[in-house]
Amino acid sequence: MVEKRKPMPVEDAVRAVMKQTLAAETEMLPLAEAHGRMLAEDLTADHDVPPFNKSPYDGFAVRSEDTTGAGRDRPVTLTVAGEIGAGSVFPRPVEKGEVVRIMTGAEIPAGCDAVVMLELVKELGSDAIELKREIKHHDNISFQGEDAKKGTVLVEKGTFINPGISALLATFGFAQVSVAKKPRVGIIATGSELLEAGEPLEPGKIRNSNAYMAIAQVERAGGEAVYFGKFNDDFDDCLQATTEALQVVDALITTGGVSVGDYDYMPAIFESLGADVMFNKVAMRPGSVTTVAAAGSKVLFGLSGNPSACYVGFELFVRPLMRTAMKSSRPHLKKQSAFLAMDFPKANPFTRFVRASSYVEDGKVYVKPAGLDKSGSVTSIAGADVFIVLPGGTRGYEKGMKVDTLLLEDTEGSEWPWSSIVPSYR
Amino acid sequence: MVEKRKPMPVEDAVRAVMKQTLAAETEMLPLAEAHGRMLAEDLTADHDVPPFNKSPYDGFAVRSEDTTGAGRDRPVTLTVAGEIGAGSVFPRPVEKGEVVRIMTGAEIPAGCDAVVMLELVKELGSDAIELKREIKHHDNISFQGEDAKKGTVLVEKGTFINPGISALLATFGFAQVSVAKKPRVGIIATGSELLEAGEPLEPGKIRNSNAYMAIAQVERAGGEAVYFGKFNDDFDDCLQATTEALQVVDALITTGGVSVGDYDYMPAIFESLGADVMFNKVAMRPGSVTTVAAAGSKVLFGLSGNPSACYVGFELFVRPLMRTAMKSSRPHLKKQSAFLAMDFPKANPFTRFVRASSYVEDGKVYVKPAGLDKSGSVTSIAGADVFIVLPGGTRGYEKGMKVDTLLLEDTEGSEWPWSSIVPSYR
Repeated sequence: MVEKRKPMPVEDAVRAVMKQTLAAETEMLPLAEAHGRMLAEDLTADHDVPPFNKSPYDGFAVRSEDTTGAGRDRPVTLTVAGEIGAGSVFPRPVEKGEVVRIMTGAEIPAGCDAVVMLELVKELGSDAIELKREIKHHDNISFQGEDAKKGTVLVEKGTFINPGISALLATFGFAQVSVAKKPRVGIIATGSELLEAGEPLEPGKIRNSNAYMAIAQVERAGGEAVYFGKFNDDFDDCLQATTEALQVVDALITTGGVSVGDYDYMPAIFESLGADVMFNKVAMRPGSVTTVAAAGSKVLFGLSGNPSACYVGFELFVRPLMRTAMKSSRPHLKKQSAFLAMDFPKANPFTRFVRASSYVEDGKVYVKPAGLDKSGSVTSIAGADVFIVLPGGTRGYEKGMKVDTLLLEDTEGSEWPWSSIVPSYR
Repeated sequence: MVEKRKPMPVEDAVRAVMKQTLAAETEMLPLAEAHGRMLAEDLTADHDVPPFNKSPYDGFAVRSEDTTGAGRDRPVTLTVAGEIGAGSVFPRPVEKGEVVRIMTGAEIPAGCDAVVMLELVKELGSDAIELKREIKHHDNISFQGEDAKKGTVLVEKGTFINPGISALLATFGFAQVSVAKKPRVGIIATGSELLEAGEPLEPGKIRNSNAYMAIAQVERAGGEAVYFGKFNDDFDDCLQATTEALQVVDALITTGGVSVGDYDYMPAIFESLGADVMFNKVAMRPGSVTTVAAAGSKVLFGLSGNPSACYVGFELFVRPLMRTAMKSSRPHLKKQSAFLAMDFPKANPFTRFVRASSYVEDGKVYVKPAGLDKSGSVTSIAGADVFIVLPGGTRGYEKGMKVDTLLLEDTEGSEWPWSSIVPSYR
């Protein structure tokens, strides 16, 4: 007989999942290996950047008052008191009538208040220069602290470490960096119809694509994927595999075995494990049969066996929990508005997540569905960089309408994308 | 004396670099490790997806003609001839008056042309069902080839392998995937003012941020970074380091030592190596002193010691050569239009690349400079996800003007972004 399930609104389902917490650990990494990881602590400037007034060019450090009145027909001659290479410091204050040859990046010597570029100077031997223009107070100086003031929080914990952040970490002396440990997320694929990628096709069977997709999704989200293999539709085998996998991971994804038919035993397995099922149906397409349960400190995600449904389930439910464990305060997919590039006439009894590709034209963002909009589609995922979010209760959308999208390849994220989803529809 | 250099337009400089080719090798990887790499061969569908007509739901496969005339008051009773689990095939054609219980994903048996969902059927024991509606020809069938037709090129070589592409690779049986080998790019930092990240600050010195930034940029571009350390401003030391490094990498980046002062020996070192200098000055800000040279099959990039200039030089010149070696036909930073979110009053005698952050509001893309717009700035890089490209010869931009941008965190790329850069200016 058919079991009746009450679908939970997407927003409530995400909220339920976010009440759980995965283990949030940190580890130290050499700076050269930190790119692409999530910063575990706020990065605060512990000194001014630059740490001293410095020269942005090769030239001469001058006392601007010495150049007062200089002009094309009234050159001033100044004495070269020495030179400062980058990394050196001039040993004494510079006196009236003196200049110091200075290299890019070197500290402005005491007494000087401006730099004149090498190209604007006539050198008279090595001891003097002739200058035919006035140099203004503070000309050509990179000021101490102009780039960053000591004490400023420059990057928040939970931020993806990009090349610029690597540069900042070096600037502030982090030879070792505290990063969030990668959450370990296990993957079990179920379904007697599944062949592994290396096996030849057989009648009635298809290759297991969900596991490899989920491995890549876990990595994209910043985690470490642990693949436990694929299993036939057998309650005992799957129960054993699930039980063993849970020992070694922070969260476990199963794909398949979650719809309402006789072979859909995953919810039952979750119950056998004593897990607390938060929901077993969500008011969304695709992915309505998603089941999520808490087992102690671990979380079990029973995702659909249909590739598109599995993909959506991961991004909505698994990703934000992983990102939260990695200290992010913006753990959800980043929400962004866009214009529909084509009609989408399908009615949406439930919130629909359309795999779509985005592009920008004339400064405006457009989105169009990528491939087949069916839960079983696999090609639509490869070409998608966003989900178009079409709220439930809408009757179809027209080209040019504004819609909300969720970004799939972004590293920044959103705080809580579910409020005020664009409701416009005909 | 000051050496005169003739600045080359950015577009010509990029074109000169792109005439070189780095070694383009491929390697085989297990599918589970292929995420994030570049596909080395086109991915063509070698079979239809789905490979057979299948059921998208748990239900009963029917012959639609058997339901003709059925209605609320005129139920039809049909005989359950058996069941098909996912992965199984029904052994004989289904006859008139028969239905077959079918699971999600299973192949539609011969003789049937539609599926009725479990929820719409009244089961009479296990041998028969009662149906109170007509089922239409082809209702609820996922058709062979509807997702992808055999022979279609689904993904082009040089494409970044995202989770959806991992799923496609699994679908088509690639247990091992041919990916582009990571180009090995060496990094040498020069400058007597440099301290390593682990060293305490000293008067006149700053920490070496460029090397760690470049390591991360090489990785983001898809390469393998090899860091050879930092060297003082000494011709012989740097010549030796450069010579040795060139033996083991495909391309070599040096930072620092490229401006017009006495200590700026990098161009001289490139000449000592017998390298063919393509240019030693580019009409752009920041990064005008960038020097690029070909040394046999290797390419030498003499980038500026100023962080922002170094960063821009990498993305404009090094990245596209790396991406081309990785088979991409879109090796350059992706170009996209956007609206300025604030005035940018600076004149642009040369093409300017402003590190900026982008955001979308009401479907429109806005950009605003991130931090300090000076070549020595390091904070502006951390907060940037685009360059704003302001063409040379322009006198300042106003809020709301349309500008071209180049995306920094994108994995897709552009073919040739340098044509028709938005020229609007006041």
